[in-house]
Amino acid sequence: MVTERLSLAGDLLDKNTLGKVLDVLNAHGVKFQTRRFKVGEFSDKPTIVDLHLTAPDVETMRRALEASAVFGALYSLEEVTLVEADMDGVLPEGFHSTSNFTTHIHIKGQFVEVENLEMDCGIRVWDENGRYRATTCPMHRVRAGDRLVVGFDGVRISPAEEEQRDDAEFRFMSNEVSSERPKRRMIEHAARAIQKAKEEGKRVLFVGGPAIVHSGSAPFLARLIEKGWIDILFAGNALAAHDIEANMLGTSLGVDLRTGGSSAHGHTHHLRAINRVRRAGSIANAIEQGLISGGVMHACVKHGIPFVLAGSIRDDGPLPDVITDGIRAQDAMRAHISGVGVCLMVATTLHSVATGNILPASVKTYCVDSDADSVIKLTDRGTHQAIGLVTDCEFFLTALVAELAA
Amino acid sequence: MVTERLSLAGDLLDKNTLGKVLDVLNAHGVKFQTRRFKVGEFSDKPTIVDLHLTAPDVETMRRALEASAVFGALYSLEEVTLVEADMDGVLPEGFHSTSNFTTHIHIKGQFVEVENLEMDCGIRVWDENGRYRATTCPMHRVRAGDRLVVGFDGVRISPAEEEQRDDAEFRFMSNEVSSERPKRRMIEHAARAIQKAKEEGKRVLFVGGPAIVHSGSAPFLARLIEKGWIDILFAGNALAAHDIEANMLGTSLGVDLRTGGSSAHGHTHHLRAINRVRRAGSIANAIEQGLISGGVMHACVKHGIPFVLAGSIRDDGPLPDVITDGIRAQDAMRAHISGVGVCLMVATTLHSVATGNILPASVKTYCVDSDADSVIKLTDRGTHQAIGLVTDCEFFLTALVAELAA
Amino acid sequence: MVTERLSLAGDLLDKNTLGKVLDVLNAHGVKFQTRRFKVGEFSDKPTIVDLHLTAPDVETMRRALEASAVFGALYSLEEVTLVEADMDGVLPEGFHSTSNFTTHIHIKGQFVEVENLEMDCGIRVWDENGRYRATTCPMHRVRAGDRLVVGFDGVRISPAEEEQRDDAEFRFMSNEVSSERPKRRMIEHAARAIQKAKEEGKRVLFVGGPAIVHSGSAPFLARLIEKGWIDILFAGNALAAHDIEANMLGTSLGVDLRTGGSSAHGHTHHLRAINRVRRAGSIANAIEQGLISGGVMHACVKHGIPFVLAGSIRDDGPLPDVITDGIRAQDAMRAHISGVGVCLMVATTLHSVATGNILPASVKTYCVDSDADSVIKLTDRGTHQAIGLVTDCEFFLTALVAELAA
Amino acid sequence: MVTERLSLAGDLLDKNTLGKVLDVLNAHGVKFQTRRFKVGEFSDKPTIVDLHLTAPDVETMRRALEASAVFGALYSLEEVTLVEADMDGVLPEGFHSTSNFTTHIHIKGQFVEVENLEMDCGIRVWDENGRYRATTCPMHRVRAGDRLVVGFDGVRISPAEEEQRDDAEFRFMSNEVSSERPKRRMIEHAARAIQKAKEEGKRVLFVGGPAIVHSGSAPFLARLIEKGWIDILFAGNALAAHDIEANMLGTSLGVDLRTGGSSAHGHTHHLRAINRVRRAGSIANAIEQGLISGGVMHACVKHGIPFVLAGSIRDDGPLPDVITDGIRAQDAMRAHISGVGVCLMVATTLHSVATGNILPASVKTYCVDSDADSVIKLTDRGTHQAIGLVTDCEFFLTALVAELAA
Repeated sequence: MVTERLSLAGDLLDKNTLGKVLDVLNAHGVKFQTRRFKVGEFSDKPTIVDLHLTAPDVETMRRALEASAVFGALYSLEEVTLVEADMDGVLPEGFHSTSNFTTHIHIKGQFVEVENLEMDCGIRVWDENGRYRATTCPMHRVRAGDRLVVGFDGVRISPAEEEQRDDAEFRFMSNEVSSERPKRRMIEHAARAIQKAKEEGKRVLFVGGPAIVHSGSAPFLARLIEKGWIDILFAGNALAAHDIEANMLGTSLGVDLRTGGSSAHGHTHHLRAINRVRRAGSIANAIEQGLISGGVMHACVKHGIPFVLAGSIRDDGPLPDVITDGIRAQDAMRAHISGVGVCLMVATTLHSVATGNILPASVKTYCVDSDADSVIKLTDRGTHQAIGLVTDCEFFLTALVAELAA
Repeated sequence: MVTERLSLAGDLLDKNTLGKVLDVLNAHGVKFQTRRFKVGEFSDKPTIVDLHLTAPDVETMRRALEASAVFGALYSLEEVTLVEADMDGVLPEGFHSTSNFTTHIHIKGQFVEVENLEMDCGIRVWDENGRYRATTCPMHRVRAGDRLVVGFDGVRISPAEEEQRDDAEFRFMSNEVSSERPKRRMIEHAARAIQKAKEEGKRVLFVGGPAIVHSGSAPFLARLIEKGWIDILFAGNALAAHDIEANMLGTSLGVDLRTGGSSAHGHTHHLRAINRVRRAGSIANAIEQGLISGGVMHACVKHGIPFVLAGSIRDDGPLPDVITDGIRAQDAMRAHISGVGVCLMVATTLHSVATGNILPASVKTYCVDSDADSVIKLTDRGTHQAIGLVTDCEFFLTALVAELAA
Repeated sequence: MVTERLSLAGDLLDKNTLGKVLDVLNAHGVKFQTRRFKVGEFSDKPTIVDLHLTAPDVETMRRALEASAVFGALYSLEEVTLVEADMDGVLPEGFHSTSNFTTHIHIKGQFVEVENLEMDCGIRVWDENGRYRATTCPMHRVRAGDRLVVGFDGVRISPAEEEQRDDAEFRFMSNEVSSERPKRRMIEHAARAIQKAKEEGKRVLFVGGPAIVHSGSAPFLARLIEKGWIDILFAGNALAAHDIEANMLGTSLGVDLRTGGSSAHGHTHHLRAINRVRRAGSIANAIEQGLISGGVMHACVKHGIPFVLAGSIRDDGPLPDVITDGIRAQDAMRAHISGVGVCLMVATTLHSVATGNILPASVKTYCVDSDADSVIKLTDRGTHQAIGLVTDCEFFLTALVAELAA
Repeated sequence: MVTERLSLAGDLLDKNTLGKVLDVLNAHGVKFQTRRFKVGEFSDKPTIVDLHLTAPDVETMRRALEASAVFGALYSLEEVTLVEADMDGVLPEGFHSTSNFTTHIHIKGQFVEVENLEMDCGIRVWDENGRYRATTCPMHRVRAGDRLVVGFDGVRISPAEEEQRDDAEFRFMSNEVSSERPKRRMIEHAARAIQKAKEEGKRVLFVGGPAIVHSGSAPFLARLIEKGWIDILFAGNALAAHDIEANMLGTSLGVDLRTGGSSAHGHTHHLRAINRVRRAGSIANAIEQGLISGGVMHACVKHGIPFVLAGSIRDDGPLPDVITDGIRAQDAMRAHISGVGVCLMVATTLHSVATGNILPASVKTYCVDSDADSVIKLTDRGTHQAIGLVTDCEFFLTALVAELAA
């Protein structure tokens, strides 16, 4: 069983070149699968077809290919290049590095299956009584004088059947959601998307959780708001309450933000902050009265950035601005979606999923959480456009401020 | 701008039907993209082509489609069905449920874009001065008398550009690795794969970490070995040492396996167990001498199941059977890969990645870990065939024993 | 600098024995810290005092201790026991296993600090020109003839200063929240607590998230309700909606619960289920009308178990029974807290934290989640009594049903 | 049943004051538990005793306390302060905020248990037919005219029995390992520890995993080495191989570090890099030959920083400098431990646990990982001194460089 790739390009349909080539293949008993079929829409763009061929033996394949060639079919029957190892434990420069998919090499007219299939090895080839054999060879097992495959010519890799899609390719790091990718690049990406959205007159929606305050990152978010990078804020009672607690009392959920230590009776601080705002009647009133002098909510009020604080059953208080009814809160959020080009979701599963529910898929969405599960939950609930960054909100916000020179 | 889907089936290439339809479309100024192109390999299987058409207006589209129809092209220009809501807050039965992709409806010859795009809503339609308009309508906003779309006819959904692949479809729960899927189904799946492998004369490789012992699940693994379901065991010093500790002293890393509490001086237990086996010279000798009377390693030795204990830098002791050199251990593992049909990787990132490195992609591989990160790491390192189960090893092993009636 | 532990017991205060011993120590220049001070409340119970002594040298210590002894002070000045290794790489049976805390041994009147401090080693002792020296010795470095410490006598371990509390002890597996502990033991523990609560006439509160349905575990929860083990249910729209979806349509968030595969148009199923219940007016009505024939909500209604469905901003629909206002929902939950003895929180961070907020600390609380972060969040918000199980809800519920023979 | 706290200070033992007070309490039928007992070691430091008293009624308690007072016992019988709410939904400023522990208030000689125990509420008090009653009152339920407790006077909080230790205190954020704490503070803390260690002539050990390279953070680690902040490096084959891959080919595990995208045939890059170093014979030789011009390993070699590359079974190649035998690698690591004052463990569970195994508890140890599980594993294996930072290595290293002005 040998396989080959056959390419056709040109005006294949009008002159029915494709039909004729397929007839030739059928006649020779060579099976084919279409791997690519790109029809040329205009006369100056050719139709391109790639076929994956399977023949019972190399001779049949060769004859069928030669017969196809008269119609302009392009194929390769190149053979592998072998290089002798010059020292123990070292592969020749340019060595072919294996995948874990079934692999054949083409050598002297033979198609030889590589034995002991294993990724990240060289391919060692030897002649055994006139028949070629090939095996994977881990680097440390190379011996001087071994003959090893170099380059890609003459190597045929067959993905597992379930992997036989157009885009099947062996690679590492294919998971979108991983804590091991360079985050800085993705934050730059988000910054560019924000700049582009602003240039196009679109708005930027920020959805945030209280960890932004707990982690000491609220000043960075406030900066983004003050500098005009954020147009709407969606959050809950907790983000606003701890932001105000931090401004009034220097703590977040009782943790001193300067030292990271627990503050005496600190667990009552957010309640005291909420209580004072309730007395004032609203966050805006409390700012007016001088009770709040900085932070995220202060930045929103001072710069006229609208916010929706949606309530939940775990709220203390809550702050007077919180919409406690979930369905009314959804409607309040809906009223702000139109015109949004970029949405940043930071450190909140509840509000991110709720916002994802009402966002068109065309909105560039970045979901930042220290837990990969949050990102997975978001896309599992239909917000497939979300690009996940598994990282600290503290890192994200400081880097984003730097990128935007905010 | 209106879009339509056109399907062609039959002997499209030999008679060049396809070429002729494409000529018609070009002549009418209708653009097309190939969405599916399945060439019939044998005369009894038709070639199937699906085209995504884009026309400047509905009239052009209609004319082009009618001209194509003479060549056997199938198309639909069905219109939406509207049903009046009979009560507030309730959609009509059979309502069309929206996605977050750009959506048009076809009504009275008009293609109308749905406004306020949002997933999980109905589509409300109204006539505004002779022009139809349509908007998403959340369930709670329905009012009796509203006219809403029912079914799929006449609704056109356009995935975001980057999503335009053949398999693009709006859905939930698309992540393979998620802690929210029914695990029992996947464990049944693994059990069936093991049974099938055994029937086909293939072998089952088990790769395990010490959490199997810590969690009290070693008896289940021992059972699988005793009943013949496991043919090879790959593990490290820790699994074997704690398995022997549990058998000798009733604890695992000092935690009493009957009570879950800490045992006095329990942190020395594994060292005492290792020390005794070192004195005996090997695990087999220790079993011979009656020092070990049960557990996973005992099951291996008594049933002749080969094991490779690969060392690592965090090993205490180690046990005399441990291969301390990583490269020699790799080679020892390689010697057992041939003929393996199913590989179970349970609660060990190190050994799972190491085994994945030397497994062909054709081996059915199940990776079980309580942490999604481990599964992501495995597939990020090239073992794409791995099916991840984010769950407890304790749950997996008890359920697997039950499924295999072991 | 040598340290010793001194114990006193008896009627130490009335006769001022303690004062006299402390005078002796002061007179000899030996410093002391109180490690334990248990005053006998009644005449038949002695007062017990443990002191940690520090003297500049062993001779001073010896003299002070002997002078104290006349008042009944108990002390030990036992020396280490040494045993010769009889073979390479193996410690003597009963070997002293080191911690990573500063360690001295007492030998021939000398207090010798152990060099190369490292956990999980033996202690090798040798005489170097009349002075004893001691070093940690990893197992593999033991040579036949080496002299090694056996047992605990004469070994003094000094925890790091910040660790000097009464309960400081070297051990493994000290984290309460870990995925590596035997879960089955903890589930048995929960089952016993439930049985005890029921016997004492207390009530059992169950707080659950939709993953219970997604994972196929709803039948187990329904069983617990039917068998009378659950007295109140707190949940959100999602658990109820997917439970009803599963009963009506066989899917949960569109995933077929029998096969684990995606169902065509499955993402609309929960909306259809919610819509039908909205038409019926309530879950109870829908059951009455025969629309729902099983599952968790059916069990509640049929067995008169009260439930509070608290709304959130990510709700679709919602179901008519959902209390959409968060503060009203809190109040509805509060109305059910009195008399609760055990609370099970399964697979929901939002509802668990909200319930934890209103529970007295005396309620036995078990928090089950596949993500350790959820448990950490709960205790970080004041619900310190919560016992965390990092595991699947599917495993927890099946095992709990088995334990309760439900 | 009423409780009170009694404090004694002075020369309690010599004059047996303590014994006399205890006699008085016994005589009145008041039970006591010692909460604190701090013996004054020197004549100028008093002995301090805190007792927790329980009497059957307030009158008994009062008499016993007055009788004790003649010996200098200090006690308080202050009563609660009540303030009227001046508006609905707002507590009086300075309100007492509840915990979830059993609580009594002392008012007009009565000790009244607070009903409906719940954290984060006020305490509302009313007179019901001459008997006082008290209940928790959530903020939103306050009505103008309600009388609420202000401050701490007269409020008695009884922790749950199992919580009755000296340090029991109600608080939030008590978990050491949490992703919600301010990381920047902890990184500053680590920077100060490093500076202090260097000033004291101690050495800094860095233990790192390959995610440092994957995340694009290798330049920051290289900077720390070049600037003299790191004295020893422990790592595996992967960190070194990908560091060299990044330097030679611009990728890490095939991911382009500038763009974050996959590189064509990138999965072979690390093998090519390893192979070239194997040909050179060592990393130092490869640098000498100009094959490597920057990065972490280059910084080590150029600045004479020793490194131990410990092998594992998942290694490709490996690099010639890797010690493939785990036990030999442990010994090589041991040889560098002496004199280490600070250890940074970044993004590697395997090497962190292995290093933790051989570190004295006195070494300041910081463990940085994006996964809380890694930190939990480390402390569960005995390295209790480790301070965990659940964050990105990228964030940690950039912030550490900034803190150290490196």
